[in-house]
Amino acid sequence: MRAAEIDEEFPVVDVDTPALEAARMLAEHSLLGIVVLTADGQLYAVLPASEVVRFIVPSYIQDDPLLASVIAESVADRAAEKLGGKTIRELLPQHQLTMPVAKADDTIIEVAAIMVRLRSPLVAVMKQGKLHGVITASRLLAVTLSCGLIDNRQLLSNCGHAAIV
Amino acid sequence: MRAAEIDEEFPVVDVDTPALEAARMLAEHSLLGIVVLTADGQLYAVLPASEVVRFIVPSYIQDDPLLASVIAESVADRAAEKLGGKTIRELLPQHQLTMPVAKADDTIIEVAAIMVRLRSPLVAVMKQGKLHGVITASRLLAVTLSCGLIDNRQLLSNCGHAAIV
Repeated sequence: MRAAEIDEEFPVVDVDTPALEAARMLAEHSLLGIVVLTADGQLYAVLPASEVVRFIVPSYIQDDPLLASVIAESVADRAAEKLGGKTIRELLPQHQLTMPVAKADDTIIEVAAIMVRLRSPLVAVMKQGKLHGVITASRLLAVTLSCGLIDNRQLLSNCGHAAIV
Repeated sequence: MRAAEIDEEFPVVDVDTPALEAARMLAEHSLLGIVVLTADGQLYAVLPASEVVRFIVPSYIQDDPLLASVIAESVADRAAEKLGGKTIRELLPQHQLTMPVAKADDTIIEVAAIMVRLRSPLVAVMKQGKLHGVITASRLLAVTLSCGLIDNRQLLSNCGHAAIV
């Protein structure tokens, strides 16, 4: 099986989307991440939810986590105010992030290797320069189990013909 | 608000659970991770789903990701066979992992700082030496947004009294 055969649709936002809107999407739908595209549909970033949490942690605390304990509870509760009026573009680092990206014809092991190396819960699958879909860690496990366990009929239906032969 | 006020129940497995069973739980319920306890209820590991994917990636590929591309598709599809007959304990590294763990009375910013530093989609909350619950990145965003945006009535109900006063 190849990446483009097992990927799924996933929520996508524009790089000029307000950061608050992206955070609200993650929160309301319990998403594990979000894909950020440019206005012309190019991949800009793959953001696990934990990276969006980074937006609300002041940089001086990222540099010295012990400082987090001296912030008053009332201030900590209003952490999301930091997102107000900012777009995703403004909050992402200027330098290019190493993005968890697979090619459409990558095998399961290639996708898994990318996921593990970048410790990312999701990998974007690109086909002819465009986002084709996303593979989450749990999706990858589901597909691998369905092929590895040929006695599991329910999961087998997901599996490519190679394992049925 | 404090960690123990916002954490949630989360699937838990024993360290001697078969790795295949843990992977199947993650796959079938689309979980973003799993908490591993010892037989006497002590925290042993907090495993994001991407760490469980690590179990199925041979170590020689983790050392040199380019090797993933030379593995035949039929072999890649059977990656989960690597989990067969092994327990979680056998697959985890011998050395102690740095675990994403918060104390019951940690503030939202302290939890967020742990999540960001360890790039973990979930943080375990401990109270009196026992697991009290888990806070996911999307849960943390939901709680922060509900307190930061007092015009959002629906989310406000999650928010502690400090923000209502």
